[in-house]
This record gives sequence, structure tokens and C-alpha cells, in this order.
Amino acid sequence: LSNQKQFHGHTHSNARSTKGAHKLGSLLDPETTRERKLLDIVKAASEVFREHGFEAGTLEDVADRLGISRPALYHYIDSKQELLAITMNYLLDLGLEEVAIIDQSEADPLARLRALMISLITMVGRERSLFTVFFRDRAGLDERYLAVILPKERRYVDYFQRAIVEAMKAKYLPEIPETLATQTLLGSCIWTYTWLDPSGAIPLEQAATMIAKFLTTLPSTKIDEMAV
Amino acid sequence: LSNQKQFHGHTHSNARSTKGAHKLGSLLDPETTRERKLLDIVKAASEVFREHGFEAGTLEDVADRLGISRPALYHYIDSKQELLAITMNYLLDLGLEEVAIIDQSEADPLARLRALMISLITMVGRERSLFTVFFRDRAGLDERYLAVILPKERRYVDYFQRAIVEAMKAKYLPEIPETLATQTLLGSCIWTYTWLDPSGAIPLEQAATMIAKFLTTLPSTKIDEMAV
Repeated sequence: LSNQKQFHGHTHSNARSTKGAHKLGSLLDPETTRERKLLDIVKAASEVFREHGFEAGTLEDVADRLGISRPALYHYIDSKQELLAITMNYLLDLGLEEVAIIDQSEADPLARLRALMISLITMVGRERSLFTVFFRDRAGLDERYLAVILPKERRYVDYFQRAIVEAMKAKYLPEIPETLATQTLLGSCIWTYTWLDPSGAIPLEQAATMIAKFLTTLPSTKIDEMAV
Repeated sequence: LSNQKQFHGHTHSNARSTKGAHKLGSLLDPETTRERKLLDIVKAASEVFREHGFEAGTLEDVADRLGISRPALYHYIDSKQELLAITMNYLLDLGLEEVAIIDQSEADPLARLRALMISLITMVGRERSLFTVFFRDRAGLDERYLAVILPKERRYVDYFQRAIVEAMKAKYLPEIPETLATQTLLGSCIWTYTWLDPSGAIPLEQAATMIAKFLTTLPSTKIDEMAV
């Protein structure tokens, strides 16, 4: 397989537009046959990795699930790493769409923050295998993928940070440096990929709601007056 | 090097006591020359991995730092994976010692929980490279190491869980299922390995204290009465 593709990164002034670029475009509203096919592949890959885990699931499994040959699959993607990048990019697009809607519809920063946390926890829980690999191997992703994925991650985090800053200003949360607060709350949500069983006794959405409220509520019967 | 060593796991009824077993014994109070040497190796390894990262740091670097030859180092440890296991085991022993002291000395569950969180965050921050590898590759550790490390992890987590259960009973925290609450708060502390720079603008201990209070305090001027 060719290693000659170059990624058309938006942050690279001298990037060349090639196959790789189109692959990491948005698949939210597929317009071309190629985009529709990539979306099918991403969905099949999610299922395979959800069932078998990322290590054990193979491109062969993905091809089988789609009823196509391995060479036909290789026409669209080159490697498992690329498949991971495309899939994470798609999940990030889905997540960004969801948090943008929450951002628009919830004026109250505390309610908004909780909704954002619930959205993240349920997204991680639904695609646990993929996120396990993503959080573990993200740093090792090829530069051309990171150039697309990292700015989206940053935008995703910014929705949280804005809600947290507003919640702190409104005295819903103790005031600490905003990056600390943001990473602390994101950490609880993200770390669920290691322990929260999406098919466990407590339904995923209910667990997510419990966690979001737990992190942003104290019982009104006993207030700790210690200043932070 | 020999692959024939067997681990004397406490959970294995038919385990044999061999070299591997002694290596994962406690190094907190080294009594034998071997234990003292292993402790030196663990400390040198921590320094090497802190400076160069776990991937880039080599056994050669560790030997150099100790002023011994590679064969001399191999007399005590067989591989980087084993060095990671021995080092994590030592850090867990240190951590357990610290949380046991906190457990004894803080009767108030909220103060105890905060002290436990601060202890965890500062431990992770001080040995960031090692914990990065540990949290990423822990599942892939050899069974004989996991048989020692996982029960210690469980004991470590239990200190948090007891403090959290007591804090919920005392109405310091909203009541949600105790495992959810424990993993949620641990998640915030553990995830700091990905973002909290121990040599950043805010000193590590101060950042840890801010995070611990942020997660367990609401401003007394505005209480959210929503039941969890």
C-alpha cells in the first residue's frame, strides 16, 4: 500500500490535498459515494471493536461485516491506525454537534455543564473500546491525523470550559483556575472508559446523570464553608 | 535470560517461591543486600523515566546512573516490564503507607477524603512518566505481577471508598452508589497524569489541594437544592 499520501491539514500552509485529506473530512452528512462508504466502514468498525476490542478486532472482521473483500476495504483505508483516526474524527464530529446543541439550548451554566458531562460520559460509554484505544494511543497517531483531531478536541473542551467559567462566576462552583477546574471535571468523565460498564446494572444514561450531579452538587443540609 | 521463574502469588495455591516472588516483596524497609540493591535500582529507574520518559529511557541509562554494568543490572531484573512492575509495586507500597497514616489520623471523613485525594494527585504528579505507562500498560503486565499489584490497588481504593461512604452518610456528599462515587473522584485524581504539569505555574501540592476542595465543596452563597 502506498505511503505517499499527504494530509491536507488546515494548520499546514504547505499541505497538499490528497486522499488522506478527504478521509478526515466530516462524515456527518455524507455527500459523495466515497463519504457514504467511509461512514459505513466507520460504523462497521465501531461494532467490530465494541464486540472484540480494538486489539483483537481485525480489518478482515470489518470487511466481513460489510460483506466486502479486504482489497475492497483497502481501497478506502490503509491501516487500523487510519481506521482509528477516521473513526475518532467521526465521533468527535458527532460529539461536537451534540455539545453545540447543548450550548445553544441551556442558558443556565450549571444545567449546561451537567448536560455536557452527561453527553461525554454516554459517548465514551457507547464506544468504550474505541475510546480506550484513543485515550491510550492518541499521542502516537500520525501527525496528519492529529492536525485535524487536536483542534476539534480543543473546541470540544472549550464548551466545557465556558460553562465552568460561567458556573464559577455564578457561584455554582468554587473558583479555582479555569484550566484546573475543566481538566478535573473532564477527567472524571473520561476516566469512566476504564470502569463504567455501559451494560452494567445501572443504565449508562442514569449513571452519567448521577456522576454529573455528584460532581456539581452538595446536600443542602450540610454546607462546607471552607473557602477554596 | 531465564523465562522459567514462577511468581509466588498469594492468590495461587500452587505457586512456587522463586526469584520473581522476592522481587515483588516490599522494598519499604529493605533488609537484605538484594532488597537494598533493588531499591537503588527502582529509585534510579524513577529518575531516568522522569527525565526521559518510559519509552526513551533504557536499562542502559538505569545502569549508567547506578554506575554499574548492564549485566550487573540484569542480575537483579530481567526486562523493562519487570522494572516497571517492581517500581509500581514500590510506589503502591509507598502510597498505601501514606493513605494508611491519613486513615488513622483524620477522623472527619471529608477532611480524610481530601487528604487522600491530595496524596494520590501528588504521588501521580511526582512520578508522572511511570504512572503514564502504568495506567496505559497495566492490563498488559504479566500475570505474576498483576497478582501482587491488583490486590494492593484494591486496598488503596478501599481507603477512598470508606472515606466516601462515611462522607455521604454524614451528608458531606450527595448519595450515589458508592462504587460510582469512588471511581468518579479517583478518575479526576488519576487523570491528572495526562495534564497536570508538576513543574507548572501552580506548585503540585497547591494544585492538588485546589482540585480536592473543588470536587468536594460548593460556595456557601449558592446551594443547589436539586436532589441527586
